[in-house]
Amino acid sequence: MHAVHQMFQRDQYARHSGIELESVEPGKARARMSVLPCHLNGVGTVQGGALFTLADFAFAAASNSHGTIAVAINVSITFMKAVSSGTLTAAAEEVAINPRLGAYTVRITDESGALVAIFQGLAYRKKDPVPHA
Amino acid sequence: MHAVHQMFQRDQYARHSGIELESVEPGKARARMSVLPCHLNGVGTVQGGALFTLADFAFAAASNSHGTIAVAINVSITFMKAVSSGTLTAAAEEVAINPRLGAYTVRITDESGALVAIFQGLAYRKKDPVPHA
Amino acid sequence: MHAVHQMFQRDQYARHSGIELESVEPGKARARMSVLPCHLNGVGTVQGGALFTLADFAFAAASNSHGTIAVAINVSITFMKAVSSGTLTAAAEEVAINPRLGAYTVRITDESGALVAIFQGLAYRKKDPVPHA
Amino acid sequence: MHAVHQMFQRDQYARHSGIELESVEPGKARARMSVLPCHLNGVGTVQGGALFTLADFAFAAASNSHGTIAVAINVSITFMKAVSSGTLTAAAEEVAINPRLGAYTVRITDESGALVAIFQGLAYRKKDPVPHA
Repeated sequence: MHAVHQMFQRDQYARHSGIELESVEPGKARARMSVLPCHLNGVGTVQGGALFTLADFAFAAASNSHGTIAVAINVSITFMKAVSSGTLTAAAEEVAINPRLGAYTVRITDESGALVAIFQGLAYRKKDPVPHA
Repeated sequence: MHAVHQMFQRDQYARHSGIELESVEPGKARARMSVLPCHLNGVGTVQGGALFTLADFAFAAASNSHGTIAVAINVSITFMKAVSSGTLTAAAEEVAINPRLGAYTVRITDESGALVAIFQGLAYRKKDPVPHA
Repeated sequence: MHAVHQMFQRDQYARHSGIELESVEPGKARARMSVLPCHLNGVGTVQGGALFTLADFAFAAASNSHGTIAVAINVSITFMKAVSSGTLTAAAEEVAINPRLGAYTVRITDESGALVAIFQGLAYRKKDPVPHA
Repeated sequence: MHAVHQMFQRDQYARHSGIELESVEPGKARARMSVLPCHLNGVGTVQGGALFTLADFAFAAASNSHGTIAVAINVSITFMKAVSSGTLTAAAEEVAINPRLGAYTVRITDESGALVAIFQGLAYRKKDPVPHA
């Protein structure tokens, strides 16, 4: 698990976006992002790309949690609710796994627990171990 | 078209991510992003969230290009090729439109023209005009 | 609930495909299909279209379970495991709902409980009531 | 190409659904379906599963058109317009291909050329040749 944490601490786009990894365990991960002015789009709500990046980060951590590298193939995201402030949480859970593929669902919720977006990610599972720093 | 350009110049997450709107015309838009260290993930390739943000920005510009507000409902993105440098271009094209929904395909290509990701976006079309600054 | 059951008993493509509605309750539905020769593709496994139809039927029942009409906008389906016999079950659950949209996840499992496909559906919620026969 | 045609003629669910393969060439395929009572849902329009099956059949033919087996991993389909009669055509085109993955877009149109649904399919490309009968 240590190696996964290290790998995700080296993620520069997550850091640039103010996203933090909260926890990782086999098949699960949580990340969070406090909404800042830099996350907003031209109409003052959190940009879809910022929501995606938050969910994708939790998905990547969960899909790499078994100690071997997994790379995203495809994601479908549905936006349910616009938000413009507060702290958002992304919780990723493994839905199914086989030797080659892993499927994950990530829910982004706001502070009241309302669903902001739902994300379904599919990862290709390589044989290579997650690298240590 | 002017109002759309203004709205997208106010997009702070795009600016924070170094993404520029290249062109907008009815049903089409192009955006570009030169890969910087802040776009990389823990294994040194452009993070999926940065690719999504680039494509989503072109999608948003294209779907708002008819003068009324359109909001993203759902996106499916497939990652075809990892990249770690150069300038990436996202080209959005309208696939179909009706009074309520618009469907768009966005292709992200690298400098050699190779497809990096393909993005299919669905927007809900409101009646409200795109606001002027 | 009665009206929903009636509406789904009139679904001719589901009947043509040997799909039965097992149960409907608010936000949930289950359907099942026993694999027959007519469901197979050219390599002898259940065709993706048959799996989709089974999942979509459960999704439609769940999304119409609140008494007003809901129509599918977009679906993403991931195929995890090929199957060629036995009885398949699709269980649809509401993930999120607002006045305009409903999001559902449907899991198709085989008799051993293994995940065959996962389906994420988005429905547009109209104001019209589900019609009685 | 001969082997692909044979494989798709053995597809029993397509035949059961009245779907015919019109043409296959490298990276492309077309299929068609004349709407029959058996394709309708409980509100009298073509069921989403029938539309999916039509598109999926064209996708499968296009993705197997290079002579090696390709299997569907993930599909996203967006429904643009309800239809209840006439002949529907699905045209699949390859969007991108690499040694492991192929991405395809399928457009379903009605007799007037209006877009009924748009389908984006991702296939995993095996090394095995498409089998001869």
